[in-house]
Amino acid sequence: MASNQKEVKLFGIVGSPFVTRVEIALNLKGVEYKFVEEKWKDFSDTLIKYNPVYKKVPVLVHNDKPISESLVILEYIDETWTPNSILPSDPYKRALARFWAKYIDESVGAVQKVAFTLDEKEREKYIEEMQASFQILENELKDKFFGGEEIGLVDITAAFIASWVPIIEEVIGLKLLTSEKFPKLYQWSQDFINHQVVKEKLPNRETQVTKFKALHESLVASK
Amino acid sequence: MASNQKEVKLFGIVGSPFVTRVEIALNLKGVEYKFVEEKWKDFSDTLIKYNPVYKKVPVLVHNDKPISESLVILEYIDETWTPNSILPSDPYKRALARFWAKYIDESVGAVQKVAFTLDEKEREKYIEEMQASFQILENELKDKFFGGEEIGLVDITAAFIASWVPIIEEVIGLKLLTSEKFPKLYQWSQDFINHQVVKEKLPNRETQVTKFKALHESLVASK
Repeated sequence: MASNQKEVKLFGIVGSPFVTRVEIALNLKGVEYKFVEEKWKDFSDTLIKYNPVYKKVPVLVHNDKPISESLVILEYIDETWTPNSILPSDPYKRALARFWAKYIDESVGAVQKVAFTLDEKEREKYIEEMQASFQILENELKDKFFGGEEIGLVDITAAFIASWVPIIEEVIGLKLLTSEKFPKLYQWSQDFINHQVVKEKLPNRETQVTKFKALHESLVASK
Repeated sequence: MASNQKEVKLFGIVGSPFVTRVEIALNLKGVEYKFVEEKWKDFSDTLIKYNPVYKKVPVLVHNDKPISESLVILEYIDETWTPNSILPSDPYKRALARFWAKYIDESVGAVQKVAFTLDEKEREKYIEEMQASFQILENELKDKFFGGEEIGLVDITAAFIASWVPIIEEVIGLKLLTSEKFPKLYQWSQDFINHQVVKEKLPNRETQVTKFKALHESLVASK
């Protein structure tokens, strides 16, 4: 293990799409790390000390120095461990990757709302919003991955589309990302979840479905 | 003029805090550029072609290649023109700068709401939210600038606090960023607007006050 891999800790929650991004990036770089499991809405004092502004996961701690916000962490990982670049080297291509990562990051909200809105009319609105984003990404996808032949910043940021959306589909019983409607994005989602580096870090699907189902049922019951 | 300064165009609106960020960064680097004035809510076809996703300013066009989103543009400028770094060279310090720039960027919304909310109770809520952010920044400010002895990414992102907030104060007749409440942040705001590179690029204060006053009065009249 290279000396700069020592003392890497990731404070996270299994199943959080933001935490999954960091896990995929560390795995891509071959960085060994200790995963420190946090509890949703009951974060440890250590987590709050490390991320006093947002009080949330993920937090990456490298040599006792904490870094928060998944996209900031991804750039740090890319700059700290050199093999398998997450960002392209050309400044213009880097700018495009950052633009699309930011765009995708901002669309997480609509997907979360699709998952947790019970009112059908309201949910329909969020599905439209989410699918409008999918269409923009469908048009943008030129190669196997957003990063070209290999995964990069945009793919890693979009991990929730490939891994979360099918779980939401199963829980709410609706098809959202289909090969008919979004052929390229659907194919990307399959290639992405089957990529060795990604596959090793995706949370177990059945566990996630069970967790989401329970959460969804408790929402319905408390309505 | 270096060859990589050729063909730099900035599509913007005078007074937009997002556009001002890019102007300050280009000035810091000594990059000559052509400012292409756009009209609010009536953007040119060229602007929409360059930024079809968000359809907004700023858009930086370098050698016919467009880049959108002010923070993405700032990183591009830093990577393309080397003198006077906007980001520190150390990966951890870069991560912190990106974290704070993102934090400040997300607080623009509260400031805009303070400016354009007429309901007093609601406005009070946004003022509290905004001042909570100011307090966090007050605690974070260790040196003359967020970037140390020189301005950097965080300072440039926060330009709206130094230049916009006093205009809002004048228009709505309330003191928001005072030296009593936020001594370090207030001093920073003075040092920032008086920095040569910044001063040359801030929109004319009187023009902005007149523009905001008219906008505010039309809001009151249409209430």
